[in-house]
Amino acid sequence: MNLHPDYLLNDINEPQDLKQLNLAQLQQLATEMRQLVLERDSAIGGHVGPNLGIMEVTLAFHYVFDSPHDKVIWDVSHQSYPHKMLTGRKLGFLDPDHYGDVTGFTAPEESDHDFFEIGHTSTSVALAVGMAQARDMRGKQENLVAVIGDGSLSGGLAFEGLNNAAKLHSNLILVVNDNQNSIASNQGGLYEGLAELRKTAGQSANNLFKFMGLDYRYVADGNDLATMIETFRAVKDIDHPIVLHVVTQKGAGYAPAEAAPERYHWRAPFDLTSGEDRQAAPQESYSAAIIDELLQQVEAGVPIAAITAGIPGAFDLHRFEKQYPAHYFDVGIAEQMSVTSAVAMAQAGIRPVVFESSTFLQRAYDQLVHDMALNSVPVVMIVRGGTISAGSATHQGSFDISYLSSLPNIEYLAPTSVEEMLSMLRWAIAQTEVPVVIRQPEKAVLHRPATQTDYSNIDYEIAHQGSEVAVMAVGDFWTLGEEVVAQLKRKLNIDASLINPKSLTNIDREDLHYLQEQHDLVVTLEDGNLSGGFGEMIARYFGATNIKTLNFGAPREFADNVPTEVLAEWYHLTPEQIVDDIERVLHSM
Amino acid sequence: MNLHPDYLLNDINEPQDLKQLNLAQLQQLATEMRQLVLERDSAIGGHVGPNLGIMEVTLAFHYVFDSPHDKVIWDVSHQSYPHKMLTGRKLGFLDPDHYGDVTGFTAPEESDHDFFEIGHTSTSVALAVGMAQARDMRGKQENLVAVIGDGSLSGGLAFEGLNNAAKLHSNLILVVNDNQNSIASNQGGLYEGLAELRKTAGQSANNLFKFMGLDYRYVADGNDLATMIETFRAVKDIDHPIVLHVVTQKGAGYAPAEAAPERYHWRAPFDLTSGEDRQAAPQESYSAAIIDELLQQVEAGVPIAAITAGIPGAFDLHRFEKQYPAHYFDVGIAEQMSVTSAVAMAQAGIRPVVFESSTFLQRAYDQLVHDMALNSVPVVMIVRGGTISAGSATHQGSFDISYLSSLPNIEYLAPTSVEEMLSMLRWAIAQTEVPVVIRQPEKAVLHRPATQTDYSNIDYEIAHQGSEVAVMAVGDFWTLGEEVVAQLKRKLNIDASLINPKSLTNIDREDLHYLQEQHDLVVTLEDGNLSGGFGEMIARYFGATNIKTLNFGAPREFADNVPTEVLAEWYHLTPEQIVDDIERVLHSM
Repeated sequence: MNLHPDYLLNDINEPQDLKQLNLAQLQQLATEMRQLVLERDSAIGGHVGPNLGIMEVTLAFHYVFDSPHDKVIWDVSHQSYPHKMLTGRKLGFLDPDHYGDVTGFTAPEESDHDFFEIGHTSTSVALAVGMAQARDMRGKQENLVAVIGDGSLSGGLAFEGLNNAAKLHSNLILVVNDNQNSIASNQGGLYEGLAELRKTAGQSANNLFKFMGLDYRYVADGNDLATMIETFRAVKDIDHPIVLHVVTQKGAGYAPAEAAPERYHWRAPFDLTSGEDRQAAPQESYSAAIIDELLQQVEAGVPIAAITAGIPGAFDLHRFEKQYPAHYFDVGIAEQMSVTSAVAMAQAGIRPVVFESSTFLQRAYDQLVHDMALNSVPVVMIVRGGTISAGSATHQGSFDISYLSSLPNIEYLAPTSVEEMLSMLRWAIAQTEVPVVIRQPEKAVLHRPATQTDYSNIDYEIAHQGSEVAVMAVGDFWTLGEEVVAQLKRKLNIDASLINPKSLTNIDREDLHYLQEQHDLVVTLEDGNLSGGFGEMIARYFGATNIKTLNFGAPREFADNVPTEVLAEWYHLTPEQIVDDIERVLHSM
Repeated sequence: MNLHPDYLLNDINEPQDLKQLNLAQLQQLATEMRQLVLERDSAIGGHVGPNLGIMEVTLAFHYVFDSPHDKVIWDVSHQSYPHKMLTGRKLGFLDPDHYGDVTGFTAPEESDHDFFEIGHTSTSVALAVGMAQARDMRGKQENLVAVIGDGSLSGGLAFEGLNNAAKLHSNLILVVNDNQNSIASNQGGLYEGLAELRKTAGQSANNLFKFMGLDYRYVADGNDLATMIETFRAVKDIDHPIVLHVVTQKGAGYAPAEAAPERYHWRAPFDLTSGEDRQAAPQESYSAAIIDELLQQVEAGVPIAAITAGIPGAFDLHRFEKQYPAHYFDVGIAEQMSVTSAVAMAQAGIRPVVFESSTFLQRAYDQLVHDMALNSVPVVMIVRGGTISAGSATHQGSFDISYLSSLPNIEYLAPTSVEEMLSMLRWAIAQTEVPVVIRQPEKAVLHRPATQTDYSNIDYEIAHQGSEVAVMAVGDFWTLGEEVVAQLKRKLNIDASLINPKSLTNIDREDLHYLQEQHDLVVTLEDGNLSGGFGEMIARYFGATNIKTLNFGAPREFADNVPTEVLAEWYHLTPEQIVDDIERVLHSM
């Protein structure tokens, strides 16, 4: 049900409808849209601060320009809620029954006003340059506007984009949305320069954008609608690239978000009155256990350096930072830097522990190959979000097994429990031979003892020794493995073996040989993509033997906001489906 | 035999030995070392211009500082020959019999004066920052010097490094070696800013480095030894990060290299007198065939854009640029930019063809995932150097099948001949559904007709229909496949089938079903890493069937300057070894 049938927004079906409104009406829209951001985010979770802060930029863009003839490209696109409200998708914000119709990022399949599905930072300038080059080749006239936050500027691709933007001799409007924040705090010298520009109202002679040959205009209050309208009017149809340095307030118009920008960058569902999360945080977490261990090790004198690329909150790292600030390094949103500087630290005798998410670590793939794997230094890395799960396809975290386990020298470990994870972490920090990556489990904390302490030779845990079928359950899929083994017993009276392979990169040849002797079928279960995954490594190993293999995981595809249970059904990952598939194979033998 | 027993260099066993020399002697060393660079490169190939240009910086560094207590980190490290000559490895340049003892890049296993094995650009600042952070945590005092070329600055990681360098409150000396060149010409607005700094002798108020909070000092002639010594003396033991903007001449001291910096960036063996290549270029090449096709298509009105990230020479692209400059885009050394801007161009109706090398494309992995695959726009991409081959481990090009074939939506094609490659290219450009990547063969040009024109459904080419054993030979390994089939007939009297699978991502289920019925063993041959490769995809497919699989390719390891024939022996990739392995499997059945 539309919660606000009285809202002026109800009359806005496309940006064209804005053109008739006066300033007061546009301001009323801003107020309504802020309320809608808060209502939706508090109900289903989402980005708060970025959307509140960008309200006036969005309204002014659609008031002045003619979308989709003129085009706006949102960096990360987590700030595109107001844009969506004005481009035919208002019901996704007015009516809770329709919240699910609209994703949290730009989506070409939703609207002609969206051009890319985007969720990672620092891409918008490069995309806009490509659009401009295409426009010029086709001899068209259109305004192209890219909106990039100051926080996104620390990522190398943003710089590569700016460098190439300067080569254009045609229209390009780059809005640097300077809200003086990243996801967490901004990091690096770049922000001193931006601060100087703010202090001098854009007059400082030292100007990164001008240095690179870009025109430049400073806008002191990007949350003032009249100013933004005037600004966009002044640059509409400009014949060369220009940077609009627009200062906004992250979370503008909602005091709690203004006061706590990191907390309100993205929030899980929360109570609008109290500001508290709707769901209490779990009593224990894998992240907290890791931080506890690291604190103890620093206390004991181990020269640990904890490194994050701008997402300390995802790893409980603020607790570490508070206690040992000299051991804590946030490089900003700059994943390449996080990996390469860790390689150097490891080479120089420090024990770096790098905290990455599966989806963002993709941005440092060459640094994993050419810096970390090739130099084979003892970097320790924790990877979160390596899982088949609901959520946006832009952040799909199921590729890490493929891109990490195929690299030389790296040991990629997948613990099944908190005890095993800590055992692996202790070994990883103590050894000095190879880079070790640990795939932090994402499901509820499990307690099971570790069965080895030195992982330089992987010794499979054979949790149950049976025959005929062997189930190899990786990391977070351990519980699934137990369920499959239980159902095999119950339904088919098969006494299947259950194995914890621990490593995604190295195999225990002795145990695989044992499997070969006692079993007809080896089943692998992994919480990630099958292509290039763990299962394929096992399938290759057994390819020329009499043992058969059956691999379960995700197919080579993106899934956008599909509930995990639905994905499990689609991908044949429920215990029932797995047992059925096993039965079919056994019958065909 | 030492060709120059009379050289002063013979007395230099370690940098310490320089300290006694006077300026004239140091200059004599520079002259000798230039000659040695030319002799070695002309004999065995190597980087020319970078090493000639950096001579005085290197001599001054080792004269002023105390390596390895003080440390120099070379970006790309292709300019490290003079450094190697001064740090105990002179014989690798004086004596042709010892050329093979010393690699073309820094190598920690060669010397304590090298800290990383490096061959990709833009890493040195990030590495030096990591070293500095480690040094500070350990309470040590040492000078850390990173040397980065202006060409390397266009890569995002360089910017991420500079941004974080500014956070240090301790010694860090960043030498920006401004030789006004990249591998090819510099690209982007950044170089306007650097030009303005050169024009004003570093006095311009607009200064990228100062903008980011870094101290700055300009050096007009970095090929003047006295100046460089004085400069390093002035900043030795400095207590904060400083950029030394040092202007040098690429190829300094050798007129042909000064005159043609791109040609002399890296050269295959050449005649020092005539300047001509020792080995004539082959009559025909895959690259030339691609450019011919693109020229025809542009001529016919197809809106092609050819895109390179700074390596046009590797793809015959200068010929395209000359004819259609408006269709040609060199983004500089900025692989992320090359992919993301291509995605935008494809979205906007242009047909971008992106030219990448297997090893450098690693630097755009997230752009392949999050921009290209997720948005599934019709980018066409040519990948060179995807092969198991001799050469530096820093440029190992055997990972592309793993990192590309595991991604959704992408079609990764491996042609076996020039005709098949062009047929694939024509389809890739004509279709608008998916990103298509074509793995350009690296072996001698092969002529075989294509067996399909529309690759939206892969139809395996069954070149020979036999039984018992089926050999699937991918791309460049086609000839190997033919040899294996011939030897199977000759040695084992097996009439093996020979299949060209064409695609590294999609399978022909119908033909695989046929294979299953008529054969006991499927053998895969791929010119790349086995982990996450083509063979594993086939092994998984057949895992639960009665058919056995055997995969040939490279193991999960780096190989540094190992001749291809030796690698083939190591990896069981000779026809004899493959046939032996097949025989063993058949006997065990």
